[in-house]
Amino acid sequence: MAHIDLGLDETRYPGITGPMKYRPETGNPLNELAEVLLRKEPHPLTRGERELIAAYVSGLNECTFCCSSHSAFAAAQLADGMDLVDQVRADLDSAPVSSKLRALLRIAGAVQESGRKVTPDLVEAARAEGAVDLEIHDTVLIAAAFCMYNRYVDGLATFAPPGKDVYAGMATMIVEHGYAIPE
Amino acid sequence: MAHIDLGLDETRYPGITGPMKYRPETGNPLNELAEVLLRKEPHPLTRGERELIAAYVSGLNECTFCCSSHSAFAAAQLADGMDLVDQVRADLDSAPVSSKLRALLRIAGAVQESGRKVTPDLVEAARAEGAVDLEIHDTVLIAAAFCMYNRYVDGLATFAPPGKDVYAGMATMIVEHGYAIPE
Repeated sequence: MAHIDLGLDETRYPGITGPMKYRPETGNPLNELAEVLLRKEPHPLTRGERELIAAYVSGLNECTFCCSSHSAFAAAQLADGMDLVDQVRADLDSAPVSSKLRALLRIAGAVQESGRKVTPDLVEAARAEGAVDLEIHDTVLIAAAFCMYNRYVDGLATFAPPGKDVYAGMATMIVEHGYAIPE
Repeated sequence: MAHIDLGLDETRYPGITGPMKYRPETGNPLNELAEVLLRKEPHPLTRGERELIAAYVSGLNECTFCCSSHSAFAAAQLADGMDLVDQVRADLDSAPVSSKLRALLRIAGAVQESGRKVTPDLVEAARAEGAVDLEIHDTVLIAAAFCMYNRYVDGLATFAPPGKDVYAGMATMIVEHGYAIPE
C-alpha cells in the first residue's frame, strides 16, 4: 500500500504510473521529460543506450520498480538484450559496451552520488572516446532525472510487481507507444 | 566554466538557466514541473512554504546555485523572510515553523537521502499535524525534483554567482513572472 490514497488499483497502476494518474499536472511534464531524454530521435545515443543509463542509475538507487522496468525497456531495444543489462549492472568495467558508453555510464554513476562528483577528468575521458556535448548533457540529465523518479516512486512506497513478466509487458507498450500517463 | 559549451555567456545565464537555454526541449518540461509544484494555486501549501522545501533540500545537497536562488525565492514569499529560511536550514527542530511544515520538511529530508527512507512513521507524523495526501505527495515530489535539479546544475559545473544580490534580483522576476526559460 502506498503512503497516500492514490484512488486507484495499485496492482493495475504499479510504480510511477499510480502517482502520475493521481496528479496528471505533474505527471505530464514528468512523462514529457522521459520521452525527450529516452526516446526522441535523432539522437547520438540509441534508445537502448539511453534506457541502459536509466536502468543503471535506478539500480544504484536500489529502486526495484524503476530498475526492473527500465532494464526491460533497455533489453527490448539492445541487440544483446537483458544479458548486456545484467553485465553492466554487475560490473561496468568488464561489461561488453563501447568505450564511449562505458565513460558515459561512469559519469551517470557519479551523478547518482552527487552532481559535484562529476569531475573534469570524467568528462574528458568521455570526450576522448568520442562523446559530444549533447551526449554528456543528456547523460547528466538522465542520471539526475532518475535520482528524481526513483525517489518519487519509493518515497511514496508505490507497488512494485514481483517477477519479470509485468515489466516485459510494459516494455512492449513503451517501445510501441512511448511515455504517457496510462489509460 | 561549465563542463560543456553551452553557447552563451554563463554570467548572464547562471546555474540551471544556461542548460535550459542550451536544450529547450528538456528545459520546457523542467520549468513546467517547477511551475506546478512551486507556484500553481490553489494549493494547501503557500508558495513560500513550497520554495522553503526546495531551498532546504538544495542545502542538504550542497548545491550553491539552487540553494541560494530558492532561499531567495522563499524569503521573498514568507512573512519572516530570509531569517526563517536561515533558521530552518540551520536547525529544523528549533525553527519557528508550523508543526505540519516541520513534519513535511522531515519527509523532504528523508527523500534527499533516498526514497526508501520515507517511513510510515514520518508520514503518520505529518498526517497527525494535519497534512493531507496532496501535501505529502507534493513534498515528496518537490524533494525528489530538487535531487534532480541540484545534480543537473552541479553535474554540468554551471556558474553560481557569488553574493546575494543576483539571487534577490532573480526572486523579483520569479515572484512576478514564474518559471520559464529566460530570454
